[in-house]
Amino acid sequence: MADQIEAYIDANRERFIEELKELMRIPSVSAQAEHDSDTQACAEWLVAHFKALGLEARLVDKGGKPIVYAAAKGKSSRRVVIYGHYDVQPEDPVDQWKTPPFEPTIRDGILYGRGATDDKGQSFTHIKAVESLLKTEGELPCEVIFLLEGEEECGGEALPRYVKEARDELKPDVLIISDSTMYDENTPAITYGLRGIVISEFTVKGPDQDVHSGAYGGAIANPAMVLAQMLSTCVAPDGKILIPHFYDDVAPLEQWESESIAKLGFDDQAFVGELNVPRPHGEPGQSTLERIWNRPTFEINGIFGGYTGGGSKTIVPASA
Amino acid sequence: MADQIEAYIDANRERFIEELKELMRIPSVSAQAEHDSDTQACAEWLVAHFKALGLEARLVDKGGKPIVYAAAKGKSSRRVVIYGHYDVQPEDPVDQWKTPPFEPTIRDGILYGRGATDDKGQSFTHIKAVESLLKTEGELPCEVIFLLEGEEECGGEALPRYVKEARDELKPDVLIISDSTMYDENTPAITYGLRGIVISEFTVKGPDQDVHSGAYGGAIANPAMVLAQMLSTCVAPDGKILIPHFYDDVAPLEQWESESIAKLGFDDQAFVGELNVPRPHGEPGQSTLERIWNRPTFEINGIFGGYTGGGSKTIVPASA
Repeated sequence: MADQIEAYIDANRERFIEELKELMRIPSVSAQAEHDSDTQACAEWLVAHFKALGLEARLVDKGGKPIVYAAAKGKSSRRVVIYGHYDVQPEDPVDQWKTPPFEPTIRDGILYGRGATDDKGQSFTHIKAVESLLKTEGELPCEVIFLLEGEEECGGEALPRYVKEARDELKPDVLIISDSTMYDENTPAITYGLRGIVISEFTVKGPDQDVHSGAYGGAIANPAMVLAQMLSTCVAPDGKILIPHFYDDVAPLEQWESESIAKLGFDDQAFVGELNVPRPHGEPGQSTLERIWNRPTFEINGIFGGYTGGGSKTIVPASA
Repeated sequence: MADQIEAYIDANRERFIEELKELMRIPSVSAQAEHDSDTQACAEWLVAHFKALGLEARLVDKGGKPIVYAAAKGKSSRRVVIYGHYDVQPEDPVDQWKTPPFEPTIRDGILYGRGATDDKGQSFTHIKAVESLLKTEGELPCEVIFLLEGEEECGGEALPRYVKEARDELKPDVLIISDSTMYDENTPAITYGLRGIVISEFTVKGPDQDVHSGAYGGAIANPAMVLAQMLSTCVAPDGKILIPHFYDDVAPLEQWESESIAKLGFDDQAFVGELNVPRPHGEPGQSTLERIWNRPTFEINGIFGGYTGGGSKTIVPASA
């Protein structure tokens, strides 16, 4: 039986990859309203794909982007719910892509493109696993429900609303989240905790319009400087976050967790080498993996203010 | 004689304004290479205009943008050199203009448009003064040379190079700079000092590409945060500039200067009200006029890094 499944996968590998590429070509960027029709098209592509595999599939509209629901009964009544998301992050900065983000490309045996690892690639492995079982066994060993949302990258409300409403119909015996990573190619991982997120955008308002920095500079507060000063009060130069009570509710690692992390033999030099930065940096007294896996962080995702075009422009900006 | 001149100006006022508008419609933005042909066209427009008034006029090429040279002899051999510039600053942010920057528009008796006060407007008053003298008197009372450069807004080398080379031919008895302001509508000003400028652009480099802030945040330095921390070491929250020796060579005001400034009765409240900021801000222990007129400043003209499009993107940016 396992042999049959492996044979099916081998025989269909190229088609699987082509289908994944087709899915990845749809620029389903949920954070940008101009991509709303792409996000919708992506959800519809998935519904059609599930139907073609013989699953019952439909879009669920709970406001925001649609949820893709797909289900198949199995031999047992036990239920596996598989979560994933079909939306992707914005493509900027486009000039940093070696190949275009929405033209999936294989280089050195690795598939590159927006969504390849977040999360079209991972959720597609589960879809193709179900297909392979259905095509070789004729039916699934248990009931499977897919829930693929379109708002993972923009913090939408549709999925939580639906899950609350349909709590009883969806109630799983096993829940699989197909949006996580492996430690490395040879070390599978069970992710049992993730950092959450709070996103804020601040604007520091100065004069009603940009004013000449020769004529006004030094006489009024410069919004870009005030912003820099505000931000620098949040994080110390050594990486410690200075916001009061920021670390208060962070559970310290238990001994088995610390030991287990230490056993992985994480290579700081390889880590920074891959990113081409000179050294790790962050909360003092924590190892790199502890910082990433167990400690909260404070990051600036983007910053802008004033004149950012070519050349220079002598202004005190209106805002930053 | 003065009456005749005034009469000429009154009779031609509308035409003068139309000509100035024509000059202002040319988007001669020197800092942006895509406007190089506009800058050239603007210089040529001025040469043609001077020739039509009967002056000897030509472009002087010393590298960079051309210098507009125009000259007329007069009754005496005394020489007045009039300096101005025909280049303008970039128009961004375009959405803050009430009317388009390169479509000069009169609102409430005031002419708005890019270059109206920096410096097409001011230099045009001198051009029209020369025209009015020539048309009423037939000749100028003294020799006049115009030097209008195209690199004032981008710090070019052409004018200093030319002035050094042509030192003897240009040597003025009087030099007039037509790129300054009046204190207010009723108080003429003789500007005898201006703040110079040093412009630098810094880039803080982080990882080779943007990386996911969930997967890497807290483990490497965030370039936008490092930039904020660097900038905040330059200026104290109270406005004092902290760069060592920054104020060392600044001459303190002489008593007559302080007294003369105090006598103007500058209204801080009107100043901040016009800009719609809550209060003046800057080097402690200095009045607003002293900060603007006598003290150097440290300004951020623009700042950017990371994702600055719509929505949000969870990254540690590659640079800022």
